[in-house]
Amino acid sequence: MNASVTNMEPALLHGGNLVAARQLFPDAPEPFIDLSTGINPHSYPVPPLPPDLFARLPEPAALDRLAEIAAGAYGAPSPACVVPAPGTQILLAPVAALVPPGRAAVFGPTYGEFAHAAALAGHQVMEAGDIEQLRDADLAIVANPNNPDGRVFKRPELLALAEARGGRGLLVIDEAFMDVGPVGASLGGDVARRNIVVLRSFGKFFGLAGLRLGFALARPAIAARLGAALGPWAVSGPAIAIGQKALADGPWIIAMRKRLEGEARRLDSVLAEAALDFVGGTSLFRLVRTSAADCLFHHLGRAGILVRRFPEQAAWLRIGLPGGESVWHRLSAALTEFSG
Amino acid sequence: MNASVTNMEPALLHGGNLVAARQLFPDAPEPFIDLSTGINPHSYPVPPLPPDLFARLPEPAALDRLAEIAAGAYGAPSPACVVPAPGTQILLAPVAALVPPGRAAVFGPTYGEFAHAAALAGHQVMEAGDIEQLRDADLAIVANPNNPDGRVFKRPELLALAEARGGRGLLVIDEAFMDVGPVGASLGGDVARRNIVVLRSFGKFFGLAGLRLGFALARPAIAARLGAALGPWAVSGPAIAIGQKALADGPWIIAMRKRLEGEARRLDSVLAEAALDFVGGTSLFRLVRTSAADCLFHHLGRAGILVRRFPEQAAWLRIGLPGGESVWHRLSAALTEFSG
Repeated sequence: MNASVTNMEPALLHGGNLVAARQLFPDAPEPFIDLSTGINPHSYPVPPLPPDLFARLPEPAALDRLAEIAAGAYGAPSPACVVPAPGTQILLAPVAALVPPGRAAVFGPTYGEFAHAAALAGHQVMEAGDIEQLRDADLAIVANPNNPDGRVFKRPELLALAEARGGRGLLVIDEAFMDVGPVGASLGGDVARRNIVVLRSFGKFFGLAGLRLGFALARPAIAARLGAALGPWAVSGPAIAIGQKALADGPWIIAMRKRLEGEARRLDSVLAEAALDFVGGTSLFRLVRTSAADCLFHHLGRAGILVRRFPEQAAWLRIGLPGGESVWHRLSAALTEFSG
Repeated sequence: MNASVTNMEPALLHGGNLVAARQLFPDAPEPFIDLSTGINPHSYPVPPLPPDLFARLPEPAALDRLAEIAAGAYGAPSPACVVPAPGTQILLAPVAALVPPGRAAVFGPTYGEFAHAAALAGHQVMEAGDIEQLRDADLAIVANPNNPDGRVFKRPELLALAEARGGRGLLVIDEAFMDVGPVGASLGGDVARRNIVVLRSFGKFFGLAGLRLGFALARPAIAARLGAALGPWAVSGPAIAIGQKALADGPWIIAMRKRLEGEARRLDSVLAEAALDFVGGTSLFRLVRTSAADCLFHHLGRAGILVRRFPEQAAWLRIGLPGGESVWHRLSAALTEFSG
């Protein structure tokens, strides 16, 4: 780890912290633009929310209906395989605790919270650069598509891994970005007969990260244990109502996948013009590698654009999708100025 | 446990399930009235919610500000003693897991989820009818005021208990109804130097149970462990914004306490007219005891009024505050018809 990495502002090691960005770049033009997350800038329209959604305890029947709709949307074998939660982040600790403390292997580099949650649950954690190394771990974790490099494992690869692991521990597949992943790559339909937990994020693809909604998919016995750990009423009334509507909105989902694909290609062009080396990504973000990453981070920051750095990968920058023409223009201009 | 209790519909053993109530009483007049919870029917007005609260990941600075305001409202020694969460229910598992599996004692009868969460965390759980029995438990849990009987422990009593327990395990005080409890009874100011966790519910007093917001108060080392278990972004953007506003709204809080006291006395009169034996309660609910509890539950149900029964206390019924004149009228009429 070099000096510039160890000096990274801790507040900026997660995405989305504009308050910290404004402190670091006090003279940047406003509005400050947040391209540091992989959250869809084109949010699903929030419908009118009746006051009862805020006032009353969420009804169990409404949560059941959400699980039913989510099972359909994510291809889970049945609603009994679906655990709605206030975001997938809050699921990491109870998921890691499903396995008695042992050896955890996280395919990586990847999202740092997996290793963190596994360590908190008492596991010895290693980062696995090869999926083969996940075979003998008690708790095996892989993000698919991976964040931030967008690497995709094919479904047969992961099913073979699950087979090779036999009855051992738990294989966790984080499909936070699978909504924009290849068709047929999800393991959501395969959870019923194996020790697999699939995590699905609602807020990223639907652009509603502040709502806090996510799901674990697992066979009913595992789902029941996770549900018991969360207890009743884990999910807010607004999240249940919006989740029901959005996950059932097939036309919006199909159109949005297409739109994001197009915009990601547009981002590729912008990055190519700046001669940035493309590492990977998904339709919700792209990852570039440049020895000038630290410089570029600060250059963009001074231009009022926040992107994402990585403590262990000093040459990487992750760049999310601009949400409108003025943002595209500012990003292009800042990159041109940097490379020019 | 007698037959009528074991036959209680499981879906109605928590409050707030109007869907199940309508199934049980299909011919009841509408609107079905929910008096089965202890949630304030006069909700804090939900302010306009900017789209960013739904779209963006909640900013750490916004959560810090909520913790600061909550520390002030609940008398916690510092914001570092405050863990915001999506409701207190979801805190029960990580709180119970702070203590290695051992003996848990829950002062009761009380809210059933405490014993449930303690058992899930691997503790041997006993119900303690006397606070003295909490002294030697590794995990000691008491609700103050207690739910459903409203019993209040004075602060010195609980501090003496904490002293007698010395450094042992954890003493958990659930102050879900302390917003309407006696002034000075909260242990929120005492968490810094002891193994105490105080739980505060936001949704009950502010009438916003669907929002999912609650807090744990504990000394910073314990608070940090709980915060790590929840991870970042546990609380939704709308909950952070509404919580900031409501917890800082002193005049609303003071006026609402008075209003609820008055309405609880009015409920007493209504219950007295029906010659019901008053057991206890808080300003948000009253508990009555009658050998005809099962009959009365069904009579009220047929009249479109849901109240709360208790599996272990067949003679108890908990009745929440009516939210408007038409509801008061329907409750009075139904009780008069029953007793007359």
